[in-house]
Amino acid sequence: MKIHTETIQVNTKASQSFEDIGPKIREALEKSGIKEGSVTLFVPHTTAAVTINENADPDVVTDMLLGLDKAFPDRRDFKHMEGNSHAHLKSSAVGVDQTILVSNGSMLLGTWQGLFFCEFDGPRNRKLHIRITGE
Amino acid sequence: MKIHTETIQVNTKASQSFEDIGPKIREALEKSGIKEGSVTLFVPHTTAAVTINENADPDVVTDMLLGLDKAFPDRRDFKHMEGNSHAHLKSSAVGVDQTILVSNGSMLLGTWQGLFFCEFDGPRNRKLHIRITGE
Amino acid sequence: MKIHTETIQVNTKASQSFEDIGPKIREALEKSGIKEGSVTLFVPHTTAAVTINENADPDVVTDMLLGLDKAFPDRRDFKHMEGNSHAHLKSSAVGVDQTILVSNGSMLLGTWQGLFFCEFDGPRNRKLHIRITGE
Repeated sequence: MKIHTETIQVNTKASQSFEDIGPKIREALEKSGIKEGSVTLFVPHTTAAVTINENADPDVVTDMLLGLDKAFPDRRDFKHMEGNSHAHLKSSAVGVDQTILVSNGSMLLGTWQGLFFCEFDGPRNRKLHIRITGE
Repeated sequence: MKIHTETIQVNTKASQSFEDIGPKIREALEKSGIKEGSVTLFVPHTTAAVTINENADPDVVTDMLLGLDKAFPDRRDFKHMEGNSHAHLKSSAVGVDQTILVSNGSMLLGTWQGLFFCEFDGPRNRKLHIRITGE
Repeated sequence: MKIHTETIQVNTKASQSFEDIGPKIREALEKSGIKEGSVTLFVPHTTAAVTINENADPDVVTDMLLGLDKAFPDRRDFKHMEGNSHAHLKSSAVGVDQTILVSNGSMLLGTWQGLFFCEFDGPRNRKLHIRITGE
């Protein structure tokens, strides 16, 4: 079994945004030469996340950022002095890891699925670990 | 290491529902012949998800659908024209992948844990990828 | 490929709490002798979860418990008689599985990332499955 690991830089451009990382993940998969296996993405930050969702209509991402803000708003009774507890909440709700299956050298994604790095407390220079395992 | 992959059909019956997929996953595990390893479930859709939760009292699922609707309601200020941004939000909050450990040929699930395909914008004919790896 | 599996006990001390399980997971990783691979954590309960978030300032955890309670409050119109539907919701939103990459014998965690067992309906004596695979 082969293991390919790399860490990419994701420079986010706003306080909250979803960055399309699909092209970079496909590049890593190609580089790995792995045809059957899986991709694991891991965000080594506590106010960011990784998710899979629609990347056809950009309004979906806009609505998702709004909806997450409404579900996990900043609150006056939060105690953490940095003022970004809402971002920690979104990070754990969306999650910092994502597994994607690989078959015939391609990720088994649905038609509308794109891969997003989720920034909840930016803009910042972030890292994303990519691990591809298989044959 | 063996890799067993299959894709099953999940025909959901309501606009929002949790479908018990436990029997189908157990069937796939048995077919694979794998005794030690893991099952990865992956939903190739952006308005559906997969989760593990109680399947003893059906009221739990009813309450979960209500609670998700209250946390991520449809909103007038959403921009996505299809009107299903709430479903995209639920998909990313619950998640489209699920890992389950396998030991002695069985999934290491707790007493009350069931496996559910979560429909948030149905009814539709959906797909679910099942990947089982191990020995 | 080596597979190391163990189940640890997590005795939670409050109705809702995040318990730092980092030391126990590092201990299991050392015991496994695995240098390149991954750790999978799995919670075999339906009112608990596992997550990665900041473990430097304890106020972050306090705020997260509050924020989850506000997003998924107990509701009078919930039907499940046990009165813990909010805990089932939090379990599925945060998730019962967590993957962490291992490289050079260490987990690839960010500076502020800690590993937490999340109790949403305690205090109880809980279990956590740990699976470490790799070379």
